[in-house]
Formats: sequence, C-alpha cells, structure tokens
Amino acid sequence: MVFDYETRVRRLQGIMQKGGIDAAVLSVGSDLPYFTGYTAMPTERLTAFAVPAEGTPMMFIPKLEAPRLPDGDFSVLPWTEDQDPVELLASHLGDPGQVAVGDHLWSVFLIGLQSRIPNRRWVALSGLSSELRMRKEPEEIASLRAAAEATDRVLQRVPDEVAFAGRTERDIAGDFARMVVDEGHDASWFTLIASGPNGASPHHDPGGRVVQAGDVVVCDFGGVVDGYHSDVTRTFVVGDPTDRQVEVHGVVEAANRAGRQAVAPGVSCQDIDRAARKVIVDAGFGEYFIHRTGHGIGLEGHEHPYLIEGYELPLEPGMTFSVEPGIYLPGEFGVRIEDIVACGDEGVDELNRADRSLVEVG
Amino acid sequence: MVFDYETRVRRLQGIMQKGGIDAAVLSVGSDLPYFTGYTAMPTERLTAFAVPAEGTPMMFIPKLEAPRLPDGDFSVLPWTEDQDPVELLASHLGDPGQVAVGDHLWSVFLIGLQSRIPNRRWVALSGLSSELRMRKEPEEIASLRAAAEATDRVLQRVPDEVAFAGRTERDIAGDFARMVVDEGHDASWFTLIASGPNGASPHHDPGGRVVQAGDVVVCDFGGVVDGYHSDVTRTFVVGDPTDRQVEVHGVVEAANRAGRQAVAPGVSCQDIDRAARKVIVDAGFGEYFIHRTGHGIGLEGHEHPYLIEGYELPLEPGMTFSVEPGIYLPGEFGVRIEDIVACGDEGVDELNRADRSLVEVG
Repeated sequence: MVFDYETRVRRLQGIMQKGGIDAAVLSVGSDLPYFTGYTAMPTERLTAFAVPAEGTPMMFIPKLEAPRLPDGDFSVLPWTEDQDPVELLASHLGDPGQVAVGDHLWSVFLIGLQSRIPNRRWVALSGLSSELRMRKEPEEIASLRAAAEATDRVLQRVPDEVAFAGRTERDIAGDFARMVVDEGHDASWFTLIASGPNGASPHHDPGGRVVQAGDVVVCDFGGVVDGYHSDVTRTFVVGDPTDRQVEVHGVVEAANRAGRQAVAPGVSCQDIDRAARKVIVDAGFGEYFIHRTGHGIGLEGHEHPYLIEGYELPLEPGMTFSVEPGIYLPGEFGVRIEDIVACGDEGVDELNRADRSLVEVG
Repeated sequence: MVFDYETRVRRLQGIMQKGGIDAAVLSVGSDLPYFTGYTAMPTERLTAFAVPAEGTPMMFIPKLEAPRLPDGDFSVLPWTEDQDPVELLASHLGDPGQVAVGDHLWSVFLIGLQSRIPNRRWVALSGLSSELRMRKEPEEIASLRAAAEATDRVLQRVPDEVAFAGRTERDIAGDFARMVVDEGHDASWFTLIASGPNGASPHHDPGGRVVQAGDVVVCDFGGVVDGYHSDVTRTFVVGDPTDRQVEVHGVVEAANRAGRQAVAPGVSCQDIDRAARKVIVDAGFGEYFIHRTGHGIGLEGHEHPYLIEGYELPLEPGMTFSVEPGIYLPGEFGVRIEDIVACGDEGVDELNRADRSLVEVG
C-alpha cells in the first residue's frame, strides 16, 4: 500500500512552522513508515530522516541498507562504515533553534546530537505529529479493519480448535500466534494468555502454568497487517463457570459495551473512560479496574489518543483505539474484554465484532 | 538462569564513581536484563531503573506490570495510571551533575527528564557498561554456545529438509524460523534469505523472489536462548555452482578462516577486521566487502566490541563476537559466511562449527 507521503511531510512542515520548530529528526518506530513508507532496522547503525521546516528532507541511512529504501521526495545520504552518522547528521542540521526528535530515537543518538549542537531546545515529535497521525486516512482504517477481522476469525476458531485444560499458557499462546498468521496477518505481535490467578496481572507473561478445569483465561493477542496492528482480548472459561465468574464477566462485558456506545465525534477521550469505568464502579469493582480504558492504535500498537481521565481531546471521525475495561481480582482471576473501534461520522464503527460473551472451552 | 545482579550493579557503581557520574537511568533494551534480570516492555509506559553512584537502586515500573518483576536488591516504585512517571523519576534523581542513560531509552523520556532537570550533563550508559558487558561470564558463554549449536543443527538439516528452487525467499525464511525454534531457541530473532542478485544487498529483506536453479542464496538467521542471541550465515547454491561462484565463495571462506584464526587475547579488534579483509583485498574483491567484519553479541544481537578499522581495543578472554566477511557483487550475487566465536585463554573458541563449504541444495 502506498500513501501520499509527500503530503504528509508537507503537513508536518506546516505544523513545524507554526510551532517554531526548525528541524525534525525521525528514526526508528513508526515515524519513518508513516512519513516515508520505509521501516528502519532498530540497530546501532543510525537511520535518520531530517525534515527541515521548509524544503527537501534528507535520509541518512547505512549504505548497506540503502538498497531497501523506496523512492521518495527526499535526498539520500548513504553513510559508510568508516563514517560517523551522528556527526554527518549534526553538520546537516546546521544551527537550528528548536529540534523535534522521534519519540523512539535511541537516547545514545540524541545525546550524540546534543553534544555536537549544544544549547538548543529539543522536543518530542509526537507533540507535533499526533494531530496528523490520530486522524486515520480511509486506507489506514481499511488495514486496521482487515487486521481486526483476522483476529475475529481466530477467536471464532478457538472453542473448536484450541485445547486449554492440561496445557501450559505458553503452549496455548503458541496456538494463537500461529492462527494469527494463518488468518492473514503478516506477523504475530504478541500473545498474552493469563490463566486462573495469573489473570489478575494485566500484563502477565504466559508461562509454565498448566490450565485447569474451572479456570478463567484472559486471551489478549494481536498481529500486524501492512504495518497496522490488531489487538483484541476475550476471556474464556474452562468448563462450567461459577456464579462469581459469570457475574464479573458480565460487569466487564457491560462496561465494554458502555465504552463502545459512548464513542461519537465530539465526545472527549476521558468520557469514554468514564462511561466504561462507571459500570464497573457501580457494580462495586472499581478498585479492581487498575488501568486506563484504552489506547490509540495504528502503525504503533499503542499510540495517541489515550482513553483516560484527564485526556480531554474530543474524538473525531477517523480516530481508532481500543476499548478494554477489565477487573483483576488478586489471588482469584481476571477478566478483560477488548475491542478495536473507530470513531465514525455518527458514532462507533466497530472493527472487532467477535462474540463477547463468556464462552466455555475445553 | 540467575546471575549475580547485585555484584553487577556494584561494579557499575564503581565505574560511575570513577567517572564522576551521579546517577544512571536504565530502561528498555538489554540494560535491565543484564543488571536486574527483568525485561521491560518497550511501551509508552516508562520502566526505569535509577542507579545512584552509591546506595540502593530504585525501579520505577507501571503498577500493572509490577507482578512480573523478580525480587532484587532494589526498591520498587510501582506508578499508577494517574501519575507522571517522568516527574516521579526526576524528583527521585534530585540534583545530579552527570547522568548516564541507557542507550535505548526512548528520546521522549530523555527529553522529559531534561526539561525537568535542565543544565546537566547526559552521557550514554554504554560508555560505562560496555567494559563490564563485553567480558562475558562463563554462564553467558554457555548460553551463547547453546544458541550457536542450535543454529548449527538447523544448518545440518537444511540440505535434506529445505526446498529452495521454485519457492519464495519469504517461504524459505519461514522454514528457517520454525527450525530455529524446533532446535531449542526460545524465539526466532530474524531470518534473512537473499537469493541471486538480492544477495548483493547485505541486509536484504526476504521477499517474493522465487529461487531458481543456479542461484547463490545467502542465509543469515538467529534466535534467542535465555536472552542470548545466535547469528550465523551460510551461503548455499541451488544445483551446480559456476566457477565464479566457487571462486568467490572460496575467498570468503578463507577470509572467515583468517578472521577466526587471528582471534587471541591481546589482538586488537581492528586486527581481526584486517586479517579477514586482507584475504578479500588480495583476491581483488576489496571494494565489494562493504561492511565491518563483525560485532559483539550477547543480550543484544549487536553490541560492543565491533570488529572494524579504528576500534583498537585488545581482545580479552570472554569477549564474544561474529566473524562475517562477505563479497557483494551488484547484479550478480553475494556471499557471506558468519560464525560466532569467543576469545578464549589461548586463542579462538568457536561457538559455531557448521560446515562452511559451498553446499548444494535443491
């Protein structure tokens, strides 16, 4: 898929001019893919895209990676193994007053730049680029939808094809990772399987615990399609659920629904968090919902906007994010239900639609 | 595997005291695994390990990830979603004169720290930590050896089990990635399959090119065992090789041998590069060996020391690195042969031992 990178760069330059930023340095992470279509290898060999407030950008790239670079409306400086790329980049930047740097640029490179161009003001690029990147283009939403639908197909296969009881979380995670690729992702991004009491740890690392009958199992996973991420969570139960499991799952399901239904242009990000959180607080589980309600998603798995108290930005059509309330009961179990949605012209546009009820698995 | 993290931190503190560094901030990448045994998730939620020149370190960790943290000789500050971790970290650091920061710390966090603690001197941690980390402990070399031996077993299976002709580079890469895990890696790190003219691009991204009879195919791949990396390259030929393919491969094989045989305590890193490069230059292919001879390897796939002209550090027992000369002929093909070796007490300790000759595949 090819986007209009030239227009994206020009829009960034417009924002730089308004903000008095003289130069921007983009590097690893999603900045280069968004503005050039090129993904740099995250290594000790610097790749940097220097964007002036006006004029043509320059790509600094290790010469041995230059054959990978697509054409674009920029100059290219392929540096060789006997050159110091930070020195080259600093000379090229000249004498800027304020420089924006990609959020994920390694600090070792920023420190190198700062020692060569001291006493400047350095700011994080996301402060400028988020306003572009949060508002997805239709082709971006199409990729996010394709990724979400692929995870929905994985979820549909789970009850029939994935054995839970008697197997380790790690083995189950392997099944999900394979199905994610089977169903059309270019790669698996992550798989989190948290069973029984491990489910009370929202970012549990799937390990050697053997899943047992009666366990509630949080399954959170995603992959990448054309650089765009999927990220979905369903919570299953092995065999018959207890009343308490049914109750807690029902509260989270209602909170997830309230969060999705609150999505509309003009509603603030924190209002989505409040809508989902209110359901959980009202049910008496407020202290066990220990994270924000969601995060933006696109070329990064987590990006702006964030759905959390204090994030007052109003939603606009084209913003894409997760709605993922959860309840985490230490020593017992956890439940999370996560969907990716877009803000549509009228209300929510649901990219994930897989069954959200408490499905029994074997 | 549990290392003596407390001693490692004390040694870092000793180096900090000698260098006049008041505080170090470690984060994503291999710094946390090396000094604490914990691997932080590389996300917008900051994990940082603040090490003072004297006294007890403090781990700043998102509260929802705190259950993953192993015990250690440090305090823990689990920050909640409504707190600003950069603000907390800056307050904790107080008024340091010089601060070392992990090379891979995201710039957005460094910029945040710098705006709260202005006018300090910031240096890259690797300048302090490399002298510890380059000298591997016996248990580290054991993990690197296990990883290297697993890749050797993959290479042994290749001629019998991997079909090349008629298949895309991407499909062949998938076979290697699966075998890497089959043979005992925890995960695949990367797989580079570069066939025919694509082999002339040292960091080619395996794509849709269909491999044909007569192609030379560069196969560079690796995985991770207990956090330690493997990284090996062999170059195969599909069917009978031409005289030119045999000649070029023979030169690279001799250069690889010369590089390995030059390894001994006291020999400088650049001398390893010179030994391998001389073989290629003498054979008339010098301009086609367009990268350094090797890189250190450990918890990072690429780390200090680097085997390149100008890197004068003398080798010491326990240093581990790649020896990977190559010849890249634009429009024709490429050849690279890469092994991981350790510097032993007397000379080279070869972690990879797989057949280095030009093996024919089908």
